[in-house]
Parts: sequence; C-alpha cells; structure tokens
Amino acid sequence: MENYLINQSNKFASSTPVAQKLQSEAEKHLPGGSTRGTAYFTPHPFWADHGEGHYLYDVDGNKYLDFMLNATSLILGHAHPSIVAALHAQATKGVAFSAPTESQTALSEILHKRIPSIDLLRFTSSGTEATMNAIRAACAFTGKHKIGKIEGGYHGSHDKVSISVNPPLNQLDPSRYNPIPEFDGIPQNLLDNIVVLPFNDLDTSENIINSNKDDLSCIIMEPIVSNFGYLPAQQNYLQGIRNITQEYNILLIFDEVQSFRMSPGGAQQIMQIRPDLTALGKIIGGGLPVGAFGGRYEVMEQFDQNIDGFIPHSGTFNGNPMSMEAGKTTLEQLDVNTYERLNHLGSVVRKKLQSIFDELEMDASVTGTGSFFGLHFGVREIKDYRSKILADQKMSKAIFSGLLNKGILLQQSCAGSLSTITDESHIDALIESIRNVMQDITAEQFH
Amino acid sequence: MENYLINQSNKFASSTPVAQKLQSEAEKHLPGGSTRGTAYFTPHPFWADHGEGHYLYDVDGNKYLDFMLNATSLILGHAHPSIVAALHAQATKGVAFSAPTESQTALSEILHKRIPSIDLLRFTSSGTEATMNAIRAACAFTGKHKIGKIEGGYHGSHDKVSISVNPPLNQLDPSRYNPIPEFDGIPQNLLDNIVVLPFNDLDTSENIINSNKDDLSCIIMEPIVSNFGYLPAQQNYLQGIRNITQEYNILLIFDEVQSFRMSPGGAQQIMQIRPDLTALGKIIGGGLPVGAFGGRYEVMEQFDQNIDGFIPHSGTFNGNPMSMEAGKTTLEQLDVNTYERLNHLGSVVRKKLQSIFDELEMDASVTGTGSFFGLHFGVREIKDYRSKILADQKMSKAIFSGLLNKGILLQQSCAGSLSTITDESHIDALIESIRNVMQDITAEQFH
Repeated sequence: MENYLINQSNKFASSTPVAQKLQSEAEKHLPGGSTRGTAYFTPHPFWADHGEGHYLYDVDGNKYLDFMLNATSLILGHAHPSIVAALHAQATKGVAFSAPTESQTALSEILHKRIPSIDLLRFTSSGTEATMNAIRAACAFTGKHKIGKIEGGYHGSHDKVSISVNPPLNQLDPSRYNPIPEFDGIPQNLLDNIVVLPFNDLDTSENIINSNKDDLSCIIMEPIVSNFGYLPAQQNYLQGIRNITQEYNILLIFDEVQSFRMSPGGAQQIMQIRPDLTALGKIIGGGLPVGAFGGRYEVMEQFDQNIDGFIPHSGTFNGNPMSMEAGKTTLEQLDVNTYERLNHLGSVVRKKLQSIFDELEMDASVTGTGSFFGLHFGVREIKDYRSKILADQKMSKAIFSGLLNKGILLQQSCAGSLSTITDESHIDALIESIRNVMQDITAEQFH
Repeated sequence: MENYLINQSNKFASSTPVAQKLQSEAEKHLPGGSTRGTAYFTPHPFWADHGEGHYLYDVDGNKYLDFMLNATSLILGHAHPSIVAALHAQATKGVAFSAPTESQTALSEILHKRIPSIDLLRFTSSGTEATMNAIRAACAFTGKHKIGKIEGGYHGSHDKVSISVNPPLNQLDPSRYNPIPEFDGIPQNLLDNIVVLPFNDLDTSENIINSNKDDLSCIIMEPIVSNFGYLPAQQNYLQGIRNITQEYNILLIFDEVQSFRMSPGGAQQIMQIRPDLTALGKIIGGGLPVGAFGGRYEVMEQFDQNIDGFIPHSGTFNGNPMSMEAGKTTLEQLDVNTYERLNHLGSVVRKKLQSIFDELEMDASVTGTGSFFGLHFGVREIKDYRSKILADQKMSKAIFSGLLNKGILLQQSCAGSLSTITDESHIDALIESIRNVMQDITAEQFH
C-alpha cells in the first residue's frame, strides 16, 4: 500500500509539471497554496483549465471524468450551454444591483413551489450563511440558545457548526457524545451550547434531547449525511426526531445543501418528513456562489423588515442576478423524469460497485442513495460517525490517487455524484477504473 | 416634512407600477418581498432591469444616476466591457471547478503586492465570511476569546459582529459602552465576549482595552467607518490602538471591505498603519460574490493544510473563477492615477455639498474621504455612533426619496461613492438635485 501510494503520487507529479509550478507560485500568496480545503491534496492538486460536459481539463492537458462536480453542485455538468447563455445575457445587463431583480423572485418561486415546507425563504452568498441564518432564526423564534447536531455532520464553516465534524478518534468519549471543536479558538461557552447526537440511534438521541429540551432551539441535520458517504437517515430515526422536536418546541432544520438534488422537493419529499426550516446551496446557484434558507411562515416572517424587532439580514451579494439566473436555468432543466433517470443511474453505480467488492472479496462497503455514492474500505457497515472513522483512510487515499491517474475524479473521501449528462458509458468507465485500481493495489500487496 | 415624504412616496409609487406588482408577487415567496436589507425601502424598492455605465435602469423605464453602486462594490460602474468580456470567456470555460485556477493565484498576487501587511490570504464567498475567518484566526493564534469592536461599526452578518451595530438610543448606557445585540437570539455568553469601544476616543478605548487585555484576541474596525458616512479614524486614534494592541498581543483587524477602494493598498496605505489582519470584499470580486482575509504570515499559516492542527477552511465557492476573473479585471483597471482622480473627484463632491449646506444655511454635515461621501442632517458634527444617532433620520429619508424621484440613487443613509467613470457632469447633476430637493423641503415647511 505504501509503495502503491508513493508510485501513484510520483506518477501524478510527473503528469502535472505545470500544476507543480503553479502550486509553488500560489504558496507565495495563499497558505499551503490553497484557498479551499477540498481543492487541495498532496503532492499538489491539478490546476483546472476548463470544463466541458462530464469532463474537467487541467493545465497539463490531462482530462478527468468528473464525479466530484464541484462538491455535487454541477448537476448539469460543466459549461452547460443554457447556463453559459444565461450568464452571457446577465453579464451584459450588469452583474449586481442594489435592487431586486425578477430572476430572484423566479428562483424563489421555483423553490417555494417544489418544497412544501418552505413558506418563505431568503438567499445568501453560501451554504455556510444559509445554515447560520437558519440557526439564528430558530434561536430568535424559540428564545432558546442550544443547538443540536449530529456527530460527524458538516454544515458549513461558521463557529456553531464547527463542532464534532471530523473529531479525532482519541478525543471521542466512549461513554457519551462530547462536543469537540474542529480547531483552536472556539470558546468554551460556545461549546457549552452545542448538543451532539448519534446518527440513526433514536433512543440515545431522544434521551439527550430530553435532558436539554428547555434549552434546545433547534436540531440541524442532513437527512442524507454527506460526511458518511451520503448515508441516508433511517425513516424511524427521522420520524422520531421530528416527533420529539415538535413536542418540545425545538425547530428541526434540514441541511439540504447537497440532498436537494434527490428530487424536485429534496430528500424531505422522498422521506416524507416536514422540517421547520431548510438550508439550501450548491445546485440552486447553477455553479455560482449561493445559499438559501427558508421554512415556516411564522419563523421566516422574523426577517420581514416591516415587522417590529425584525432580524436584519443584509448581504451585498444576496440574490445576485448571476447566481439567480444560473440557478433558475439549472432547476428548469430538472423535471421529474430527469430526477428519476439520475437516481436510477445512481442505483446502477452503487450495485456495480458492490459487485466489484464482492467479486474481489474486498472488505468494503458502498453507501449512498439517489445520485450519490460513497465508498468505504476496511469496514463492512457504516452506520454513524464512530463506525465511519474506523474505515481505512489510507486505502481511500490510494483509490482516490489511483483513479486520478486513470482520469477519474472523485471526492477525496471516495464519494461522488452523477450529473444529468451521466450515461452508462461514464459509469462503466468508473467501474472499470475502480476494478483496475483495486487489482493493482492487491497485486502490489503480494509483490 | 411629513407632507413632503408622503408626496415623494406617492410620486415614486406612481412612476413604478411594475415594481409594485413585482413586489406583491415577491412577498409570496420572500419575507417582506426582499432577500437583502439594503435593497428594500417603503413603499417598495424599484426593480432593476439592467445597468450601463453610471446608470441603473428599472423595469418601469426609469433611469437612476447610481452612487449606491451596489454598496460601493461597482467601482468601474455597471456592465464594464472588460468585465463582461472576462465573464463571457470564463462562463464558456465553466463557472466552477473543484481545483484551483490561475485566476485565483493572479488575484491573490495582486492583493499581496498592493497590501504590504498581507503576507498570505484566503478567499471566501462574502465579506461576512472574511471578517468571520479573520476573527477566528485571531482567537486561534492568541488563545484568547474576547473581541473588541467599535460601537456602531458594521462588519457583516455573523453573530460575533451583530453586536452594537445600530443599537437604539434608549438602550445606550450613558455611563459605559454596553454590548447590545442587533436581534433576539444572540446568547448572553456570546455578548460577554464582546468589548465595545468608542470611535476616535483614545483615552476611553485604552482604558477598556487595558481592563480586558488578558482576554482580548483582537480588535476589528473599519479605518473609515461606513456606518458613520465613511468617517475616517483620526491618525492618533489609529496609532494609539495599534500601539496598545501590539503591546498586549491583541491582533488588530482592519475591515477594508469598503475602504480598500481608497488606494492601491487601501486605507491602511494612506493612514500608514499596519494591521495584523485585513478583511476584503466588494470591489475585489468586480461585482460578483467574494471576500478575502489575509495578514501576517504566522497568523495566516494556521490555514496551511500541511501543518498539524491547521484551521480547516472549506467553501464550495471560495476562489470561484467567475469572481476571480471579474476581480482581477477590476483591479487591473485601477492604477495610481485612477485612484488619484477618483479621490480628487470625491473631495470636489464633498466641497460642493458643504457649499450647498452653507448657502442654504442648513444644519447639516458632510463626511467622507477618498471617493466616499456621507450626509447627515440636524447635526453639525459626526464624531462617533452617539453623535451620529442624533441626526435627523426623517430628513435623510426625505432626501433619499426626493433624489430617487429626480433619478439619483444614493444609499438609504444618504451616503455614496464614485466610480472610475464618474465625471464632473455626474457630480453637477448630484449637486443640483440635492439643492432642488432641499429647496423643495424648505418650501414645503413654510407652506
């Protein structure tokens, strides 16, 4: 394995000399030469030149079949002609105004109509700002200050959700779900406001919620946890959480920044659970910076500037017309049939991946639902953060690197998603490459 | 005055029937029909159709000479041909990649070279995310948790800076600078971490800093306070704050999201003060969503992913190539001569505004510096938040509304900024319109 990793790293370096030069240059200006966690890996990331359809082309002339899709956001693939046309038209009219535009209403109307739990919504510049404002709305509405979150759940980068996202194994208390800051600089009194829940463990979650019910303003969760390879919540877990939150005036916030790509109404439509608030992002901006949060009328009404004591919500780029146009154009392409096809292809991918693992007698597991898939090595079942963290990270890195050298791009965690232009040939290319990589790794181990 | 306001409101309504219809439609989907504080006013905002150069055109066929410039961000005016061309080119190549691009390095290099206090920087999706990450870096670096801010200072919308931004007069404690939350839902233990300082009052600020020195991680301030009509800090105040922060290992963060348009190196270049960290936004994205934060090597190095215990900094849209291209194109247009011309025109505007007030014997004051200006009524001098809040808000609203009906767009607080395409004719149009509006108001008062 060590050798395989070194070989792949060397192979990648030798096929990306321009990237190596650009990385050195970038390190003079940006810490680690990077401005974004997921866009960095060792020895250095490839440098993007352009995208076209399902492919990303780098500055060294390499071509990648892209299942990373900018963290699931490019659901139409790269440089979709409708998006390019919409952006050309909008740029010519101006990129930003200190006034509302019709595209903002149009996109809000589409989201409002597709997601029945959303009575009213607001746009933000990012998913981070979306979950931040949803939590703020819940605290203001309930008059309570504690926030419940799933251990291992990712909800953006503001402080309140930078707790127990990827905590190291040795900091996990075996006897309880202790809140663990992601970095130094989070004050203890913020940590005291965070209540951590185990995913898909209803009894324990209910007990924890019960003992914090008078202080809990909200529980935020992804119905399909991206950090666990897009693992969906069990129906009875979601229903149980919905019941107990309703009982105790705790708002349930669904982070559907990623899972909104499940259906016209997101994961909540498929799972038939109605949250109080929903956070959105990724595909609703068609690739451009965007976020949104919305939900129950009486909670969202707090942002109405005509109401006494309203919550101010400014933002120079909220509802900016470039993102609105790209988002509207994207959602217009996504009808019921498109989702059905996408989700069907997703199940094909997952089934074929499982077949390889069975065939090669690999200790591995496939997660995902809809158009998402996730791969985990060295473990038979992923059910929550504490089972996920036991997976073989080195093997993940090996598979990611091996695939990259074969022209296949996944998320670094070996998860991915499909786009509307994915067809069986793309899936076969993915499957064949994974088989080859795994055979190479096995061969190397017996070498 | 009451009558004038009603008349102007009616006049605006009768010239914006389409906007009124669009506003009603928007209220079905967005709280108050709006997604952004500064883009809303009563009876309803105009709806933007397109922009061209110095002018914004609305859906009702009205034309506004724009000094709002999307909150100072459109320094080249609307739909600048170079920006349009850059965006067309980038959109065709794809709007987003999960990999770095050369434009990101190019923009970071420009900023690094122009701002000597910035050794390293990172991009974000907004100014809010920029100040949030700068504060986070300061807390992690110093191991302290309190944050100092100026009473009345605006630094975006995250919780830590949503304190004492626009506190109501009756909540201000005359004997001290008490932290006041902007809305319900900010927990007491966050408030306890915020230390509020009076602007330009060095003795008091030093005393407050002294009594909190062991807990203060940073002080964040705009060197030119946007909320006070772009009032610059006095040199001795800034120097005093720099000295005491340096002495006590408190990081000084300059929020230059707006004031970066003062010179190639921002306000800090003109004022000759070197902060530890700087937050940027607005013009550096050429109108598209963007933010950045940067500063001392050893503070920013904390974000280097190759370092143990690094601070994770993800963000799907960090450094997105559309914003990078538009930002780079914008800054390339801004050379020393352009800034000189812009700032000269700014002083012309401020001088001419003061002349009107003198001529009409108005109780009013003009603030601003560089290409910024701010108008305040019913007060002779603005020196901090507590003098600013005494100004006549109704008169501000009257002037804003009167100007709008004459086709001039300011910020609602009657502040504004210039663009590189502003010339003397635009300034004369502004001055004449303000004179007319004030004469109308005076006439109405004696009617």
